[in-house]
Amino acid sequence: MSQLTEIASLGEFALVKKLTQDLPTQQPSTLVGVGEDCAVLQPATDELVVLSSELFCEGVHFDLSYTPLKHLGYKLAVATISDLCAANATPTQLLVNLGLPARFTVEATAELFEGIKLAAQNYQTDIVGGDTTAAKMLTVSITAIGKATKTERTHRHGAAPNQLICVSGDLGGAYLGLMLLEREKRVFTQNAEIQPDLEGNNYILQRQLRPEARTDFKGIFEQNGFLPTAIIDISDGIASDIQHICVASDIGCKIYEEKIPLDPQTIATAQLFNLDVTMCALNGGEDYELLFVVEQAHYEKIKNHPDITIIGYTTEAHEGKMLVTRDNTAHELLAQGWKR
Amino acid sequence: MSQLTEIASLGEFALVKKLTQDLPTQQPSTLVGVGEDCAVLQPATDELVVLSSELFCEGVHFDLSYTPLKHLGYKLAVATISDLCAANATPTQLLVNLGLPARFTVEATAELFEGIKLAAQNYQTDIVGGDTTAAKMLTVSITAIGKATKTERTHRHGAAPNQLICVSGDLGGAYLGLMLLEREKRVFTQNAEIQPDLEGNNYILQRQLRPEARTDFKGIFEQNGFLPTAIIDISDGIASDIQHICVASDIGCKIYEEKIPLDPQTIATAQLFNLDVTMCALNGGEDYELLFVVEQAHYEKIKNHPDITIIGYTTEAHEGKMLVTRDNTAHELLAQGWKR
Repeated sequence: MSQLTEIASLGEFALVKKLTQDLPTQQPSTLVGVGEDCAVLQPATDELVVLSSELFCEGVHFDLSYTPLKHLGYKLAVATISDLCAANATPTQLLVNLGLPARFTVEATAELFEGIKLAAQNYQTDIVGGDTTAAKMLTVSITAIGKATKTERTHRHGAAPNQLICVSGDLGGAYLGLMLLEREKRVFTQNAEIQPDLEGNNYILQRQLRPEARTDFKGIFEQNGFLPTAIIDISDGIASDIQHICVASDIGCKIYEEKIPLDPQTIATAQLFNLDVTMCALNGGEDYELLFVVEQAHYEKIKNHPDITIIGYTTEAHEGKMLVTRDNTAHELLAQGWKR
Repeated sequence: MSQLTEIASLGEFALVKKLTQDLPTQQPSTLVGVGEDCAVLQPATDELVVLSSELFCEGVHFDLSYTPLKHLGYKLAVATISDLCAANATPTQLLVNLGLPARFTVEATAELFEGIKLAAQNYQTDIVGGDTTAAKMLTVSITAIGKATKTERTHRHGAAPNQLICVSGDLGGAYLGLMLLEREKRVFTQNAEIQPDLEGNNYILQRQLRPEARTDFKGIFEQNGFLPTAIIDISDGIASDIQHICVASDIGCKIYEEKIPLDPQTIATAQLFNLDVTMCALNGGEDYELLFVVEQAHYEKIKNHPDITIIGYTTEAHEGKMLVTRDNTAHELLAQGWKR
C-alpha cells in the first residue's frame, strides 16, 4: 500500500494545484478557468446562461462506508448537471467547492476529484473554479452552468391540461440499489468477516452509485422535432417531482401505475425486500431520469421511442393529482406516495 | 419570546417558499430567479459572465457562539461578492446553498437568510436560486455572478515590475475584532454571569462581523481614468494574497511596513493583546479590502485619494517578495508572515 499524505502537510494552495494541474477547457465560452479568483465566461450572443447549484453533505446525502470516492464525485457532478436538463440546457461548465475533514488524505481527495473530472469530461463541461476548504464532515457544493437558446429552453410552468406525461428510461432502480447496499452494510457491521453479496445486481447498483444525467434528451427532442411543454429531472421521485410541474403550470395529472417503466432487476429486488415496487419507483428518487410533458400532436413521434414511456396525461387543476392503480381505481398522488 | 418552529415540521418546500417569498429581481440580465430548477440569465452582448463560488462551514469559518445570524449571512454574501472585485466585475446575481442542522429552527434560518438578502439588496444583486438541505453542521455555499466588459476586466497575471502596489481602506481590523470576540467568549465560558465588554470597539467589531466588499472601486477606477494591471481582494491577508499576483504575473514586490494603513482602533487593540500590528495587518485576513497594482503613470491620480494607500512597488521576479520594516531592513515576505 502506498503512503498516504495528510492535507495539512501539503497545504491548500498545493492541494488545489495538484487537483487542477490537468484540467483542459474545451467549451468556447470558457475564457478563464481555474487559477484566478473568478471564472470568466463569454456566452455566445444568442445563448442564455442557465445555472443550478447543489449542496451535498456527508451523513445526509451519502454514506462513505459503501460509496467509492470516485463514484461519489461522479454522482454529485451528475446530480447537479441533471438539473440543467429541466431547462433543456446543455451543460458547459462546473464550479466545484470541496469541504474536507482533517481525516481526509490528499489521495482520498484526488480520488473524489477524479470522479468529478470524469463526469466533467463525459458531459463535455469545463471545471472552471471553486473553493477548497477545511470542514468537519465531507461537504461538496457544485454549481453547473449550461447554455440554451430562447426557443429551446423549457419552463416548469409551460404544461397545459390534456398533454402526455412521459418519462425517460426506467424508475426505482437507484432506490433498490441503495436498499441492497444498506443491507450489506448491516451484515458487515454485524460480522466483518462476511463479504458483501452484490452479485447479479450490477444494473441497480450502477443506478445508485454511478447514475447518468439525461443530457442526451435535448438531442432526442431536437431530432424528433418536438419540444416538451415542461421538463423536470427525477431526483426526489416522480410523485414529488411532478407536483412542481403541476403547481407551476396550474394543472392536475393522471398517472397509470401499470405504465411506470421498471427494470426486471428493480422488480426482483423489490420482491426480495418485500417492498411495493410502484412505491419505490414513485418515491425512491435519485434516478436522474426526465419527466416531461408533450402536446398530444406529437404522439406519433414518441409512441415507439425505445427510451420514452408515456405514463399518463395532464388534467385540469381541479381534477387533482391522481394515480390510477393496476386495479383501475384512482388515488390521490401525494409527494410522499399516495393514499390507498 | 415567540414560539420557535422546527424545520422538520414545515418541510423543505415550505421553508424555501417562506424564505424566498419576497425576492424582487432588479438586474436586467435576470430572466428566471428562484422557483424553477435552474436560474436563467441573459447577459448583454458585450458582457462577460464572471463567477466565484465559496464554501463556509460551521466550526471552521465561523463560530455561532458570538456571530449574530443576520450578520453571518451578510458577511458570507459579502465575502463571495468580494471575489468578483478581483476581476473588476460588478455583482449581478447570487446562488445560495444552505445546509441546515436539525437544531436549526425556521426562525434561525430566516434570520441567516435575512442577512444574505440584505447584502444582496445593498449590492444590487438578485438571489436567483440555490439549494436547501439538511446537514450535520451549518454549511453555506454561495456563488456570486457578476458582469464586466472585456476592456474593464482585470487579471492576476497583468502586473509588471516597477508598478505601484496599492490597497484600499485599512488593514488588520477584522482580525483584531476577532481577537476581541474570542477573548470575550473565553471570559463568558469561564463565568456566564459576566457580560461581554466590547464597548468602544465598534469599528473593529464591524470589520469582523459585518464587513463590506469594495465594489465601489470599479467606479473609482473609472472616475479617475485608470485601470489596475492586477487586483485581488484581501481575504487571507496581503502577505498571502500578494503572492498570487506575484506568481501569476512573474514579478517580485517590495512592501513598506510604515506605509500599511491602520486604523487607530486596530493599533490600540493590537497593543492591548500584545500583538505585532503589522503581522495582524499582513496575515489577519477577512478585511475584504482590495490590493491592486497601478502603472506609475497614474501616480498623480491616486496619490491624494483618501481611500487609496500606496504601500510599495512591484519588482523583477528575481528580486523576491520583500517587506521593508520600519528600521529600513528588507525581509522576505512569506505567505504566513515574514522572516525576521
